[in-house]
Amino acid sequence: MKTTLIIIGLLLFYTSAAFCADKAAPMLVEKQHFTTKNFTTVSGKTITKVDIGWESYGKLNEAKDNVILITHYFSGTSHAAGKYKADDALLGYWDAIIGPGKAIDTDKYFVISSDTLVNANWHDPNVITTGPASINPATGKPYGLDFPVVTITDFVNVQKRLLDSLGIKKLHAVMGASMGSFQALEWAVRYPDQVERLIHVIGAATMDAWTVAALEKWALPIRLDKNWQQGDYYNKERPLDGLAATMLNITQDAMHPIIYNASFPNFNVLDQGALNDIRTLPQLSQTLATRAMARAKTQDANHVLYLVRASQLFTAGMQDDLTSALKKVKAKTLLLPATNDLLLRPENMQAVYSAMKTAGKEVEMSEIKGGWGHLDGIFSISPKAQLIRDFLKEESHE
Amino acid sequence: MKTTLIIIGLLLFYTSAAFCADKAAPMLVEKQHFTTKNFTTVSGKTITKVDIGWESYGKLNEAKDNVILITHYFSGTSHAAGKYKADDALLGYWDAIIGPGKAIDTDKYFVISSDTLVNANWHDPNVITTGPASINPATGKPYGLDFPVVTITDFVNVQKRLLDSLGIKKLHAVMGASMGSFQALEWAVRYPDQVERLIHVIGAATMDAWTVAALEKWALPIRLDKNWQQGDYYNKERPLDGLAATMLNITQDAMHPIIYNASFPNFNVLDQGALNDIRTLPQLSQTLATRAMARAKTQDANHVLYLVRASQLFTAGMQDDLTSALKKVKAKTLLLPATNDLLLRPENMQAVYSAMKTAGKEVEMSEIKGGWGHLDGIFSISPKAQLIRDFLKEESHE
Repeated sequence: MKTTLIIIGLLLFYTSAAFCADKAAPMLVEKQHFTTKNFTTVSGKTITKVDIGWESYGKLNEAKDNVILITHYFSGTSHAAGKYKADDALLGYWDAIIGPGKAIDTDKYFVISSDTLVNANWHDPNVITTGPASINPATGKPYGLDFPVVTITDFVNVQKRLLDSLGIKKLHAVMGASMGSFQALEWAVRYPDQVERLIHVIGAATMDAWTVAALEKWALPIRLDKNWQQGDYYNKERPLDGLAATMLNITQDAMHPIIYNASFPNFNVLDQGALNDIRTLPQLSQTLATRAMARAKTQDANHVLYLVRASQLFTAGMQDDLTSALKKVKAKTLLLPATNDLLLRPENMQAVYSAMKTAGKEVEMSEIKGGWGHLDGIFSISPKAQLIRDFLKEESHE
Repeated sequence: MKTTLIIIGLLLFYTSAAFCADKAAPMLVEKQHFTTKNFTTVSGKTITKVDIGWESYGKLNEAKDNVILITHYFSGTSHAAGKYKADDALLGYWDAIIGPGKAIDTDKYFVISSDTLVNANWHDPNVITTGPASINPATGKPYGLDFPVVTITDFVNVQKRLLDSLGIKKLHAVMGASMGSFQALEWAVRYPDQVERLIHVIGAATMDAWTVAALEKWALPIRLDKNWQQGDYYNKERPLDGLAATMLNITQDAMHPIIYNASFPNFNVLDQGALNDIRTLPQLSQTLATRAMARAKTQDANHVLYLVRASQLFTAGMQDDLTSALKKVKAKTLLLPATNDLLLRPENMQAVYSAMKTAGKEVEMSEIKGGWGHLDGIFSISPKAQLIRDFLKEESHE
């Protein structure tokens, strides 16, 4: 009897281990490179050559009508799911919902995602982007601040060229979180006939004064760094201290105190080192500084400044009247703000929801619950998997 | 009939104008100077000579038992009510509740308030404080970072010496907002037999990891400024850019989007200057920068760093166990968190309220409503005037 139980136990163990191993086996994805020439920005400047990276999961069908575009957030990259190599430490950020049999089912859909212009992660070997750190063909040197200001619309228009190059004329859906939501909405406003569904996560439809000021706080430390040198630091010492301070700001702004405090269970306010000398930072501040510096090292400071600017200038359709911009949307829309988001607050999405409802749009909204705050849009997306799966189905409710 | 109405109207107009003029006539207050020698800090260092400024409203009675101490917030000074000169632009920050016949009635109470150690406003001619910008008697030069770390307890202990010098042995009440609430609570924990009432506004009882990190974000821009020079900038160029960035952070952290957005009614996200050149900041950012620089000019950067540190190290009684610290309080306690406070969140005060209730303390709590956020503790205090007036009455509810 005892032996039988042990055997059953072992069988169950191996079965579950095998199951887990199977579940854990990541999709392996390959980064692709797209180049386009003479790209004209919203600000009317021409970028001679644009290179961006992209990746995809699942197969493009013959009709090329099974496409879901994923647009990435401020600090993100094209890497939404899977791994580049089996031993990568991390999965793509939305791997919980993108993959075979998952909510965004790669057995059905061709999911594609690209690095934006001025992507922050310039020093990440998997990222391909064009921005102030790129070589200006006119001078043979990095653009620096001579790179034109780019907008969310420009990000979208580069993606449009990528999709055009693949012969894709229509999107089954576009989905993005945070700055990715700006792009997703911009797709639906700019190209209403090509976007069938919009999933807008922890986002906004326009910037208010509060958010523009919050974003400015991300730019300030970089500009203060003595190594920044008005953006002319290439081949010199990088403004890493300022960039690290910016990373520290971004990290905290994207979180809620609930998870923040929980993630420092050994925090002790009575910090003897900090009490004894002003030059010794509290242990917590030292930890934060170390982590922020590690993040800073993969990023380019000017690229972050350009991302701040692109975000600060965002308003759907780049037009004065938000309501009339929203009226252009033809996509069936799902708004997923996060209840505890302190950065892009859910109250603002309530107004967008109401405006779209009033305009007769097919829109639904559901709040993501969680303790992460803004980051619940990434880390707490799983409870919305069924909602997303249903939303993506061909059958319209109309 | 018409003439009569006009005359009545004019009479009413002049009466109300006279009434307003009377109401508006400020208390004139005089800044006083207190000096104490050989002050030993919590960190065990001795400051040879401490100078602080103070002011008072109302008269100290013969028994010296009508004293209400007001402790100031991070960016504040002793100037809680009245004006120094009739033509001062601004009244003291709680003038709405401190004065003859007001909630804190200066016809009854002797209200006293002092500048803290390391007060931020070093360049404000009305402020008297001791900190890193003060001359170190040992060297004849400003202390800079050789000034010892000081804590909220030290602020309280300097106030204690001031009150001792006036022969005051007991406080009818101590009241403070934000960092002032830390001091007020610390009074009640350290000197329980001398504090009869505690009014704790938009405050906290201890720092969590979240708040320590938020405070670190106020220190970072100063340390990044190339002129900061490890705090050794006296008689050189001041680190005003970093300090201004810090002011910008503090201002936004103390506000809520409701009032922030309302205060920029002409905000336009489609900022042509910002779209055309990365070097041109959005108009809003320029406005914020100008205001922040004006504030920075009255402050000392090192003093702000020391205030950050004092706040980061705060926990009631400077002891590990908050519950046992709160048990020491004998004062009847009124907690006034602000509903929309994003900096020192009202949830934390709910825990303090419960802990004090459980310990059998006489404690009540009432939330301040408003759109300012943290600053509701200053700007929206009037609706709590009657509550405060009643709370201060001699009659105990026990």
